[in-house]
Amino acid sequence: MPIRVVGLDGDDTLWHNETRFKLTQDALRELLRHHVPDADVDAQLFEVEMKNLKLYGYGVKAFTLSMVETAIQVTGGRIPAADLEVILSWGKEMLQAPTELLEGVEESLRDVGRRYDLLLITMGDLFDQESKLARSGLGDAFRGVEILSEKNVDSYRAVFQRRGIDPEEFVMVGNSLRFDVAPVVALGSRAVHVPFHVEWQHANLAEELLPQAGWRRISHLSELGQVLAEL
Amino acid sequence: MPIRVVGLDGDDTLWHNETRFKLTQDALRELLRHHVPDADVDAQLFEVEMKNLKLYGYGVKAFTLSMVETAIQVTGGRIPAADLEVILSWGKEMLQAPTELLEGVEESLRDVGRRYDLLLITMGDLFDQESKLARSGLGDAFRGVEILSEKNVDSYRAVFQRRGIDPEEFVMVGNSLRFDVAPVVALGSRAVHVPFHVEWQHANLAEELLPQAGWRRISHLSELGQVLAEL
Repeated sequence: MPIRVVGLDGDDTLWHNETRFKLTQDALRELLRHHVPDADVDAQLFEVEMKNLKLYGYGVKAFTLSMVETAIQVTGGRIPAADLEVILSWGKEMLQAPTELLEGVEESLRDVGRRYDLLLITMGDLFDQESKLARSGLGDAFRGVEILSEKNVDSYRAVFQRRGIDPEEFVMVGNSLRFDVAPVVALGSRAVHVPFHVEWQHANLAEELLPQAGWRRISHLSELGQVLAEL
Repeated sequence: MPIRVVGLDGDDTLWHNETRFKLTQDALRELLRHHVPDADVDAQLFEVEMKNLKLYGYGVKAFTLSMVETAIQVTGGRIPAADLEVILSWGKEMLQAPTELLEGVEESLRDVGRRYDLLLITMGDLFDQESKLARSGLGDAFRGVEILSEKNVDSYRAVFQRRGIDPEEFVMVGNSLRFDVAPVVALGSRAVHVPFHVEWQHANLAEELLPQAGWRRISHLSELGQVLAEL
């Protein structure tokens, strides 16, 4: 079946995201070093995030709450409230940061948008993602926008049903093997993986869990038109 | 034009919500009283919430972050981290609390669902609202679900476009004059207001801002079938 609809992830596929999380995490590590020089802040934060995932979901607000919790835990409650206020302010900065498009995104979308219906399929805070899209200037490029609380087989299937999409006429494009590749291939769609140089640990997937076929990898979004024509 | 689609708000229309926010706010007031007996915690919290609205949007995570910020501000940074950890735990309790349906909701939905397409239209954290709906057992009652980051003229208009709804064949039902009544009436739809006994200050609307016509008030959801038949 020929491809009709192309789904595109937003964070770290169209615009910078993880870089900012990492920079904030660097700042957290630095802040906590003054209180507990030997703590493994990254490991603790990741543990807290994973524990909170089923309650908070993804996004900056969840990240901020998990940073505050980690800071309190790691310091045994000795962190002064003023430092926690600083952590809150980092979250706000992240939410206000301009949407920085990755290189060549506009041209690539214009190119593939001429031949396929484009659907933005992102994950995270509803409010934050809508605001990012609005500030990206890319709003007009998409036929529709889906902001999901989780990207898995069930949520992609719901998108297909909602929008009358046959899985075989759909291709998902994104930087996450776990969220953008594995679930759609499991549903019989195809996927294009565009790795980003910084990857959140949880968005990765062990090689053995990856589908054998049904997806391709490109190194830059500018190759998307070519690879879609070949699929 | 006869009514075809009935939109229903979730929080405090189908299930309890504000009651839980108020109970948590009571606990915050009590906690902070030990540190600053004279502080007007409610006023400060509301101010912080309104200031954060354009960054955080609505929902429990936003509320939790604003509680932490208020606690730090009100105590001039003197609040111990252990108390802030308690505030974080309240947020988690709210997110895990069972979805408590208001009285008679299931019967009312079954009744009107036989004659109209029902659409759940809620606002708040995507993740939290989906989880609440799943736990409510009401999922099957709805033809579709819309979780909006904001309920205003633009977001209702987008729902109409997305779902091919003519405003004149749509009625919105909810407890908030600001979110469920005023914007849809402005778009030429009709609305049914079902007041809830506890109302968040921001969800209210001054009488003079209310539309003169195009909406009705009922005291209980069980009257909905009757009033829809009369519209």
